[in-house]
Amino acid sequence: MSLKLNLSYAGEFASDENLSSMAAEVSAAHEMLHNGTGLGNGFLGWVDLPVNYDKEEYDRIKKAAAKIRSDSQVLVVLGIGGSYLGARAVIEFVRSNNYNLIEKDTPNVYFGGNTISSSAVYELIELCKDKDFSVNVISKSGTTTETAVAFRVFKELLEKKYGKEEARGRIYVTTDRVKGALKGVAVTEGYETFVVPDNVGGRFSVLTAVGLLPIAAAGIDIDSLMQGAAEARAKYLNPDLMSNDCYKYAAFRNLLYRDGRCVEMLAAYEPSMTMFCEWFKQLFGESEGKDGKGLFPASAIFSTDLHSLGQYIQQGQKILFETVVWVNNPKNDVPIDLDPVNADGLNFLAGKSVSFVNRKAFEGTVLAHTDGDVPNVILEIDKMDERSLGHLIYFFEKACGISGYILGVNPFDQPGVESYKKNMFALLGKPGYEDLRAQLADRI
Amino acid sequence: MSLKLNLSYAGEFASDENLSSMAAEVSAAHEMLHNGTGLGNGFLGWVDLPVNYDKEEYDRIKKAAAKIRSDSQVLVVLGIGGSYLGARAVIEFVRSNNYNLIEKDTPNVYFGGNTISSSAVYELIELCKDKDFSVNVISKSGTTTETAVAFRVFKELLEKKYGKEEARGRIYVTTDRVKGALKGVAVTEGYETFVVPDNVGGRFSVLTAVGLLPIAAAGIDIDSLMQGAAEARAKYLNPDLMSNDCYKYAAFRNLLYRDGRCVEMLAAYEPSMTMFCEWFKQLFGESEGKDGKGLFPASAIFSTDLHSLGQYIQQGQKILFETVVWVNNPKNDVPIDLDPVNADGLNFLAGKSVSFVNRKAFEGTVLAHTDGDVPNVILEIDKMDERSLGHLIYFFEKACGISGYILGVNPFDQPGVESYKKNMFALLGKPGYEDLRAQLADRI
Repeated sequence: MSLKLNLSYAGEFASDENLSSMAAEVSAAHEMLHNGTGLGNGFLGWVDLPVNYDKEEYDRIKKAAAKIRSDSQVLVVLGIGGSYLGARAVIEFVRSNNYNLIEKDTPNVYFGGNTISSSAVYELIELCKDKDFSVNVISKSGTTTETAVAFRVFKELLEKKYGKEEARGRIYVTTDRVKGALKGVAVTEGYETFVVPDNVGGRFSVLTAVGLLPIAAAGIDIDSLMQGAAEARAKYLNPDLMSNDCYKYAAFRNLLYRDGRCVEMLAAYEPSMTMFCEWFKQLFGESEGKDGKGLFPASAIFSTDLHSLGQYIQQGQKILFETVVWVNNPKNDVPIDLDPVNADGLNFLAGKSVSFVNRKAFEGTVLAHTDGDVPNVILEIDKMDERSLGHLIYFFEKACGISGYILGVNPFDQPGVESYKKNMFALLGKPGYEDLRAQLADRI
Repeated sequence: MSLKLNLSYAGEFASDENLSSMAAEVSAAHEMLHNGTGLGNGFLGWVDLPVNYDKEEYDRIKKAAAKIRSDSQVLVVLGIGGSYLGARAVIEFVRSNNYNLIEKDTPNVYFGGNTISSSAVYELIELCKDKDFSVNVISKSGTTTETAVAFRVFKELLEKKYGKEEARGRIYVTTDRVKGALKGVAVTEGYETFVVPDNVGGRFSVLTAVGLLPIAAAGIDIDSLMQGAAEARAKYLNPDLMSNDCYKYAAFRNLLYRDGRCVEMLAAYEPSMTMFCEWFKQLFGESEGKDGKGLFPASAIFSTDLHSLGQYIQQGQKILFETVVWVNNPKNDVPIDLDPVNADGLNFLAGKSVSFVNRKAFEGTVLAHTDGDVPNVILEIDKMDERSLGHLIYFFEKACGISGYILGVNPFDQPGVESYKKNMFALLGKPGYEDLRAQLADRI
C-alpha cells in the first residue's frame, strides 16, 4: 500500500453523491493542470518532475552531497519559505525531528537565512564557527533579504576560516539557471551551482535541487523519494474523480469550505512530522489564501496537542476539519512491561507495545472528534520512509493544484508576499522606495 | 518599560468608544475573578501566585535544580500539556530554541511523556541512556497515559543504570500534595516531591513547581521570572478597563470575535518564541474553546513565516487578527558589512545591524497586514529575559481569565479533553470500559 484515503469518518460531504457533484469542476481543473490552460500555467513544472528532471544535475547533487558528508560536520542551508521548508520537512520526517541531536555519520543540517532575528543569526554563527562546515545558499534571485544577509555573513566566515580558495569548494549555490544576482556571483567566484527551475514555484520545489541537495547531504535516499513521487504521479493521473483519491480529497475540502468550515488542521501522531505540517501549511496557505478566499491551514501533533488544542477541536467553534496522516508501521517500538506495583494502573497494557497504544489513541481520537462534529479525512501511509514520503508530497502537491483551480484562484502565485517586503524596503531606506517611505513614515 | 500595549494598528474596535462599551462586562469579569464568584472558581490559585506561594518548596526547587545541574548531563522532563509547555516555552524564550544544541554549563532538557509515538519514545531513550541523567515526572494523578508509560520506561532505565538507591536520588516527582498514584509511589520509594496545587490548572501552572523545577535546572533565574509576574499582577489589578491594558486586550479580542473574526494569530519575530506561542495556544484554546465558542489560536514566527503563511494573512479570508509580541532589545546583534561587489544590492544596509532590519520588517509587516484588513495588536517588551517573560506570562493568563468570563464560558475546565481518552481506554481494553468498547468496536 502506498497511500490509502479513508473518508469513512469524513461525514456527509464525503458521500459518493456529494463528491460526484464536483465532477465537472474537478474535470475542468484536471484539464487546466494537464493542458496548461489555467492561471499560473508557467509554473506547472512540478507536475511531471518525478519523471522529467535533469539527470546530469541529479548525479551532481549526489556527488556534492557525498563531498559535504565527507568534509563537513555541519551543512548550513540558507533559504526561506519553499527554499527551506521542504528539505527540513523531509530530513525530520525520514531521520528525526531531533536529527541534529542524535548520533549519526552524516552532518548536522542547520537552516538559516530564513529569519532576521539578530539573536538567531548570532547563534547560528556560534553553532558553526568551530566546526567544519559547508554552505548551501538557495535563492532564485539572490536578493531575498533574509537569505542574502545571512549569505554575506557565512561567506565571510567560511573565507576567514578556510581562505578564499577552500571556501569556494564549500559553497553550493542553488539559484536561477542563467540570471540573477546569486548566479552572477557564483559564476564569478566559481561556485558549484544547481538550478531553481523557472517553471516550479518555491513551495513546489522540494523535489528539485532546492530540496534534494540538503536532503541527500543528510544521508537520505533521494532515489526512493523520487520513486515514491513518480508512483503517485502515475496513480493520480486518472481524470475521473471517483477513481482518483487525490482528486476526491481536493473536491472534499472545497465542499467543506463552501459549507463554512474555514480551518483545515493537518494532524499526525509522530513528532517527526512537525515540519512536514509546516511544509503543508505553506503549500496550501500560499496557494489558496488569496482573493479573500481559502481554508486557513493549521496543524497539530497528537496525542501531544490533544492536551493543548484538543479541547478546542472537541468542543469549540465548529470551523475546523482535520486531515490526519497515520503511519501504519513505526520506525521503532518500545514494549510496555509488567510492573508488580501497578500504581499507574497500566498493567492492562503489559505485553503490548507503545505503538499499539498510539494506534488506539488515533482511533479513539478520530471517533471522539467525529462525534464532536469535526470531519476527519484519514491518509494512511506505510512507513516514515523516503518512498512513502515522496508519494505523500506529490499527493498534496497535486491536490493543492486541483483544489486551487476548483476554488477559482491562481494556485501558483503569491502576490501578497510582496506587501511586507515593499514596506520593509521603504522603511530601510532602499534606493527607489523614497515615495513609499514618505507615505509610511507618518504611519509608524 | 515592562510591557506596552499598542492598539494604534488594531482598527476601529480598539477605539476608546468601542472599548468602553465593554466596561460593564469587564467589570463583571473582574469581580468574578477577584471574588471567586464565577465558573471554575476552584482554580484561581494562579491569580495571586506571584506573591502567594510556598517559600519552603521554592527553596527546595532551587536546591534540586542545583543538584541536577551538578550531577546530570540531561534532565528528562515527563509531562504533557500544561505539564511541559510552560517550562519548555520559558527555557527556549530565555535561553534559546536551540538550547539542547548550544554549548553551555547546564544540562540538556528533553521533554518526553507527551507522546505515545513509539519512534519518539525509542529515540528519547537513545538520547539519554549513555548520559548521566535525572528525571522530573510531572502528573497530578500519575495515571496520564503518555506520561505514565514514559515514566515506567525511564524509571527502569535509571534503576538499571545506577541501581535502585542512586536512581531514587535522580527522580523528582511533581504531583498532587497528598493523593494519587504518583504521590503514593513517591512516598513508598522516597522520591523528592513537589506540588501541583489543587487550585491551579495545568495551563496556568508554569509558575508553580510544574514549570519552575525544569526552568531552574536550565540555569534560568526564577526569582526574576516571579518578580516580573508579581509586577504584572500589581499592574493589572486596576478594575477600570480604560486604565488596565490587560483588560483592554481581553475586551478587544471579544469585540473582534463578536464581529466574526475566528482566528487569533500570535506572531513574534524571534524563533526562540516558537514554544511560547504553543504555550499561548494551549492557554487560550483550552480556556475558551468550549460550548461551541472561542477564537481558534494560531501562531507564526516572522519574518520566516511571512514566506509561508504571509500570503494567506495578507490576501486570504478575513477571519484573522494578529497579536504581535515585539522585543525591543535583542539578546545579540550582528553587523552588516560593506561588500565591494554588492551583487545582492544590500550595501544600503552596510553599517546597520541585523536587528535594525528585523525592526523594519516588523513595522513594514504591521502596516501591510493592517492594509490587508487584518487588525494588529502589538505587545512590546524590553528584552527576552526572565523579568519581561514573567510579566508577559501573567499578562496573558489574566487576559485569558477575563476574556473567558466575557465570552461566557468556564475558562478553567477542559471537559473535552476526556473524550479521546475515554475512547482510547475502551479500545485499549482497560478494565471498566467494556460497554464503551462494545459500542466503539463497530465504528472502527
